[in-house]
Amino acid sequence: MSTQQTTVAVIGLGIMGGPMAANLVKAGFDTVGYNRSPQKVKDLEAAGGRGAASIAEAVADADVIITMVPDSPDVEDVALGEGGLVGAAKSGAIWVDASTIRPDVAVRVGEAATEAGLRPLDAPVSGGEKGAIEATLSIMAGGEAETFEAARPVLEAVGKTIVHVGPSGSGQTVKAANQLIVAGTIELVSEALVFLEAYGVDTEAAIKVLAGGLAGNRILDNKASAMAQRSFQPGFRVDLHHKDMGIVTAAAREAGVAIPLGALTAQLMGSLRQLGHGDLDHSALLLLVEQLSGHTRKD
Amino acid sequence: MSTQQTTVAVIGLGIMGGPMAANLVKAGFDTVGYNRSPQKVKDLEAAGGRGAASIAEAVADADVIITMVPDSPDVEDVALGEGGLVGAAKSGAIWVDASTIRPDVAVRVGEAATEAGLRPLDAPVSGGEKGAIEATLSIMAGGEAETFEAARPVLEAVGKTIVHVGPSGSGQTVKAANQLIVAGTIELVSEALVFLEAYGVDTEAAIKVLAGGLAGNRILDNKASAMAQRSFQPGFRVDLHHKDMGIVTAAAREAGVAIPLGALTAQLMGSLRQLGHGDLDHSALLLLVEQLSGHTRKD
Repeated sequence: MSTQQTTVAVIGLGIMGGPMAANLVKAGFDTVGYNRSPQKVKDLEAAGGRGAASIAEAVADADVIITMVPDSPDVEDVALGEGGLVGAAKSGAIWVDASTIRPDVAVRVGEAATEAGLRPLDAPVSGGEKGAIEATLSIMAGGEAETFEAARPVLEAVGKTIVHVGPSGSGQTVKAANQLIVAGTIELVSEALVFLEAYGVDTEAAIKVLAGGLAGNRILDNKASAMAQRSFQPGFRVDLHHKDMGIVTAAAREAGVAIPLGALTAQLMGSLRQLGHGDLDHSALLLLVEQLSGHTRKD
Repeated sequence: MSTQQTTVAVIGLGIMGGPMAANLVKAGFDTVGYNRSPQKVKDLEAAGGRGAASIAEAVADADVIITMVPDSPDVEDVALGEGGLVGAAKSGAIWVDASTIRPDVAVRVGEAATEAGLRPLDAPVSGGEKGAIEATLSIMAGGEAETFEAARPVLEAVGKTIVHVGPSGSGQTVKAANQLIVAGTIELVSEALVFLEAYGVDTEAAIKVLAGGLAGNRILDNKASAMAQRSFQPGFRVDLHHKDMGIVTAAAREAGVAIPLGALTAQLMGSLRQLGHGDLDHSALLLLVEQLSGHTRKD
């Protein structure tokens, strides 16, 4: 599929979908976008894309459709609801759902799409707003291998590490594992930072040396310094990560897999939200460690 | 301090101390080693270093002394016991304790060494046998800044990321935080892998895409593939990491810091040891997740 002849529809032009659509335009795809609030559509038009007034209009001529919406019910609505894409897309169109949703819902909507003649992939992403803007997202795709290969040129316009991980639903399963590791790592780094502060250690120096050894991770690289400064601008909101921890704990329970650290992290993320911090970046788990410890940072 | 004129004594020529001493020889230092079992001393002599028959003989002319022994009581014995280095080293010698021990013990033996005219650093390392052999260790040093700068040429011969993190004891405090993050990350990756296997996901593909996003960490990079293959050759033994989890939980409790994930991980590491797996690599935490889940790998 050549870039020039390919029309890509993007449904959901928010923090993630907006920059992804802009990168599709940049890569030379004929890009048409739809979003519930129309300002985002105008932003895409300003970036060189085409706007649509409905899902049906956006997907009518699309070879590839990307959906990027908040949660499982949103995907069901956008795909199968009144005026949804499954009834409106042309036969043979590829549908890439980049949203993070329940694996079982991904399988179900994928089956409905296949019956309607579409070629579905569940292809959630990791890398956040920064990765979306810089087109460096990690993309974990489930579905038919042939569909994945056909979608690859489009995925390469928005991501860097692009991997087919298995059949329908597998992308969401890997994303669930991703969210478990990310939340758990944030909590581990939070515990380490509050511990180090309590002992009066030079935190910046400690972050540097921890990042250089076997403890090294992307949270130490990208977030720990801001955490030490108590800067929790999202990024990725606690509310959304709480939703994702619900997905992974339910999916693990369903499969009979014990995830003791994942389950405890889910509890802590839920507490943080209940304490009124749902709008902060997920790295605000540090605030909960601090509160549990009766500590505040010494300046 | 020039390399040619500097004599470095290494006490403890095991899995870590042996390769560190060999790298000091390679860097041109006059290196003298002592080890309880004499074969290791012969290995150092074969590598171009000098052997000593006692701690006192090893440290008598040393400008810098490195100790690398298993646990807090070993350091106390080697430093302050009968024939220990504190009574035998020349005044002004730098003593670098690279062992991983309790921060409070590090402070106490450091004070005793200072009173005896030595210049102590607590400088535990991360990076394991591989890092020791390749001279790429991360070194987290506590003590006087001036002593750290004086020791730097010697530390640079064995490590890559070398950071002064604060006063006496701080190196051990950072190492404790390091061990918390490492053990917790191994457990998170273990939970993710068993979860993915239960859903029949392509584990190797998943490891690749997880490592590329915000979940990325050194365990995914260096250990996850071996874990997926159930290969747990140490590396770093469960017994030793169990010891280290005792250090970090005690130190956190002492400081009044809540480390919920650290504490749970310590419990799991202890269980793994009780189940008879103390001699395996710490990445064998996966076996415990598997057992808790009633799963075994489908080949």
